[in-house]
Amino acid sequence: MNHVMELLKSHTSVRKFTNKLVDDQLLKEIIQASQYASTSNHIQAYTIIRVKDQAKRKTLAKLSGDQPYVEECPIFLVFCADLNRLGKACSIHHEVIESSSTETFILATVDTALVAQNIMIAAESAGLGGVYIGGIRNNPQGVCDLLQIPHHVYPVFGMCLGYPEKINATKPRLPLSLILKEDTYSTDGDENHLTEYDELISNYYKVRTNNERSNTWTEGIATYLKNKQRPHMKDFLHNKGFEMK
Amino acid sequence: MNHVMELLKSHTSVRKFTNKLVDDQLLKEIIQASQYASTSNHIQAYTIIRVKDQAKRKTLAKLSGDQPYVEECPIFLVFCADLNRLGKACSIHHEVIESSSTETFILATVDTALVAQNIMIAAESAGLGGVYIGGIRNNPQGVCDLLQIPHHVYPVFGMCLGYPEKINATKPRLPLSLILKEDTYSTDGDENHLTEYDELISNYYKVRTNNERSNTWTEGIATYLKNKQRPHMKDFLHNKGFEMK
Repeated sequence: MNHVMELLKSHTSVRKFTNKLVDDQLLKEIIQASQYASTSNHIQAYTIIRVKDQAKRKTLAKLSGDQPYVEECPIFLVFCADLNRLGKACSIHHEVIESSSTETFILATVDTALVAQNIMIAAESAGLGGVYIGGIRNNPQGVCDLLQIPHHVYPVFGMCLGYPEKINATKPRLPLSLILKEDTYSTDGDENHLTEYDELISNYYKVRTNNERSNTWTEGIATYLKNKQRPHMKDFLHNKGFEMK
Repeated sequence: MNHVMELLKSHTSVRKFTNKLVDDQLLKEIIQASQYASTSNHIQAYTIIRVKDQAKRKTLAKLSGDQPYVEECPIFLVFCADLNRLGKACSIHHEVIESSSTETFILATVDTALVAQNIMIAAESAGLGGVYIGGIRNNPQGVCDLLQIPHHVYPVFGMCLGYPEKINATKPRLPLSLILKEDTYSTDGDENHLTEYDELISNYYKVRTNNERSNTWTEGIATYLKNKQRPHMKDFLHNKGFEMK
């Protein structure tokens, strides 16, 4: 396994950072290198908003479900799926983009995720660490108001970056047999693999928390997903011009 | 700029591959390292189907809009956003997942994109090249029938991987000033930057095609997006249990 793969395999979320500032030039290099991520038909349907203003950071931390590292981290980025720029490109040539389709929503969301993952990898390669902030979708309209995010643009997630104060052990992932299939989506043997993985995760939590936590993976999933997550997203997106037609 | 960033910055889509086979052990290492991508609440909501069967490959190449490299490439992967496994995890604990919400659709789609991008980077670090196949959504129901993809799972994109026969020059990306904003989504100066980028892209095509092609970026976008893309996606997803509620 080469050292790029070792880097990928060492990823853990970092939420505590040292006071060391991140050089602006380094951040610029990270983002510019990351822009070479694949993009459907070269549409590059994303915009990244770096939030430096501390009052805005404080509000974002609150809007994201009281996550203090959103306020405290050296670099905070809001990743937006962006059809607005594409609309401008079309209007220059007297065309109108069909921006309210499910497909354009997928195109822009995937483009945003690909470039963000490159940024996470590039940052980690430079000794930084970070965490995605899905909580940016807790109150996406509040985020849009705060950052003046226009129609046909929506914040998909945030990202904290900085020099890690501490790096945790990696959390075990699902066994390959569960996530990689051959020629058909077959679930033969999945139940046994799930049971094994449940034990692995339970042991991981026990070790990490001095036996204070011991839930399995399936328990964690059931607890998380039994409640409808972010039920406002449909209406929010509809109001933003993403109508999922 | 370190060599990981250099690797990211050197990305180009590869559609022509040598006959050299990709070692199964290498593919396994690539995917296992890539699984450490961030995942919302550790849900890991994706399944990858490797398609080896040549008859299926031929059908997939046709379903994806007659893209011959889907049939010819050494490795072809179909990346699926997967809520089915999460549903099983919930049912073990007598809970029911709300799998038809817009939010769970975003969660699973983003999870899938993050792990896929890690796989692209890991593959490139090992000397492979590849290309995403969004065309897998041209006829997603056909893909589901062929690969027996169940309810609450949908194919987001495919990916061809192999040893590159030839590596193209990279295609210039949008200038940083267009995609990176500070504190607000401001579009001041965007028009001038778009004009400059249009010239850059036009020159890029001229050089690459011996003056046969010279369109600008905004022209390309207008031509691509003036027609509604994949209008079947809403109904397809609805029928698959992704109701975007």
